[in-house]
Amino acid sequence: MRQNDDPVTGGSPAADGIPDGRSARKRRAIMEAATALFLRDGYRSTSMDQVAADAAVSKQTVYKHFADKEQLFREIVLGVTGNSEAIITDLTSVLRDNDIGSIADLRTVLTDLARRYIDGVLRSNVLSLRRLIIAEAERFPDLARTYFEQAPSRGINVIAAALRTYEKRGLLDLGDARLAAAHFAYLVLGIPQDRAQFCPEDRPSPAERDLLAAEAVRVFLAAYQDSRHRSGNSARDAKRGRD
Amino acid sequence: MRQNDDPVTGGSPAADGIPDGRSARKRRAIMEAATALFLRDGYRSTSMDQVAADAAVSKQTVYKHFADKEQLFREIVLGVTGNSEAIITDLTSVLRDNDIGSIADLRTVLTDLARRYIDGVLRSNVLSLRRLIIAEAERFPDLARTYFEQAPSRGINVIAAALRTYEKRGLLDLGDARLAAAHFAYLVLGIPQDRAQFCPEDRPSPAERDLLAAEAVRVFLAAYQDSRHRSGNSARDAKRGRD
Repeated sequence: MRQNDDPVTGGSPAADGIPDGRSARKRRAIMEAATALFLRDGYRSTSMDQVAADAAVSKQTVYKHFADKEQLFREIVLGVTGNSEAIITDLTSVLRDNDIGSIADLRTVLTDLARRYIDGVLRSNVLSLRRLIIAEAERFPDLARTYFEQAPSRGINVIAAALRTYEKRGLLDLGDARLAAAHFAYLVLGIPQDRAQFCPEDRPSPAERDLLAAEAVRVFLAAYQDSRHRSGNSARDAKRGRD
Repeated sequence: MRQNDDPVTGGSPAADGIPDGRSARKRRAIMEAATALFLRDGYRSTSMDQVAADAAVSKQTVYKHFADKEQLFREIVLGVTGNSEAIITDLTSVLRDNDIGSIADLRTVLTDLARRYIDGVLRSNVLSLRRLIIAEAERFPDLARTYFEQAPSRGINVIAAALRTYEKRGLLDLGDARLAAAHFAYLVLGIPQDRAQFCPEDRPSPAERDLLAAEAVRVFLAAYQDSRHRSGNSARDAKRGRD
């Protein structure tokens, strides 16, 4: 980040590369204004003039912090991509439980995971960003790929690593663990996430979310639990009072 | 559609509501130009001036056919939504096969269905439209909902109806058939469609597509085949030489 004494910006001088408080605040205001505009109007329809006006700074200040609209957009997308850390950390905390010794334990953990996963990806800001990046995937293919790899794909990798530990304990029979984790992810997320992509207001009720989570886990375990644990462990059989 | 003798448009007069050939051609040219522009630049960044220029007609001609940009956009989205008929008709043709009497038959049919489903939703124009509608879902919630209901959701309904017939033959044990069909859809499509949303050039190779289809069907049948057919019918068990 370049710093200067430009009186137009009102920024006070600071050592190179170390923003002083005022400059950092302005940078934050610019990013917040630009994020809101990009999410509302898309990339092309957002102008640096609007960003400056909404951030209540001069256009020169905007250009002091960001070389151009593209750089501003990139920093925002990559910044919000970093926020997917929160979802992934939450997933990891559930999966790190070491007390899983039975299919029943595993079912409980995976159902809890599934619920949190749905809640995480259906947060309004996550969905809005997802929509924006999908919209701009052809204009910014590298950025969209980075998001895909750092967020949805990384979540699946984290789940794959956990599933492998359950396989080592003899609970699962995965074959390709990455594929199994992706099946888990889309069984859990596919229904509510695809609907919410198109219908922003459509979120499952807590009861529907719990049902989606439980049924996704039922299907997943029917396909992937180790066959030694298979008999008498089907949730549907149990639920319906069958053998 | 209004018709007039406006010399600017060059359209010859026609009976009300019945476009003559020249007018219909112009209408088509406008819709084609607008579709290309909306897909490339999004809704907000496309102007009626550009549409007129790209369609090689006057702006008056554009407004003769479409009251405003919003109406033009709506007609295009709903028109392309109608094209999803092609995918759904293709799915239906596979599912209408009445010779399915065993799990092996069903596996074959569902795997064929899964392959066609992947091919259908990964077509470039389908993906581009999907991206555009997702991008505009907050601006045009009714349109996005209509698309969702007429295309992805309708495909799932068609599959649910077919699955019910297989359940009646004692091959499946579905519980909620709509949920089972949605599990099938996202098991099949989730991985390649989500990736292609973000990475427009990433399509599975034919071999990868076949593997995704086969594994999705394996997971689906493990969870949903009627338990009377369950033993000795697991594809993974068979593949691995287990019992």
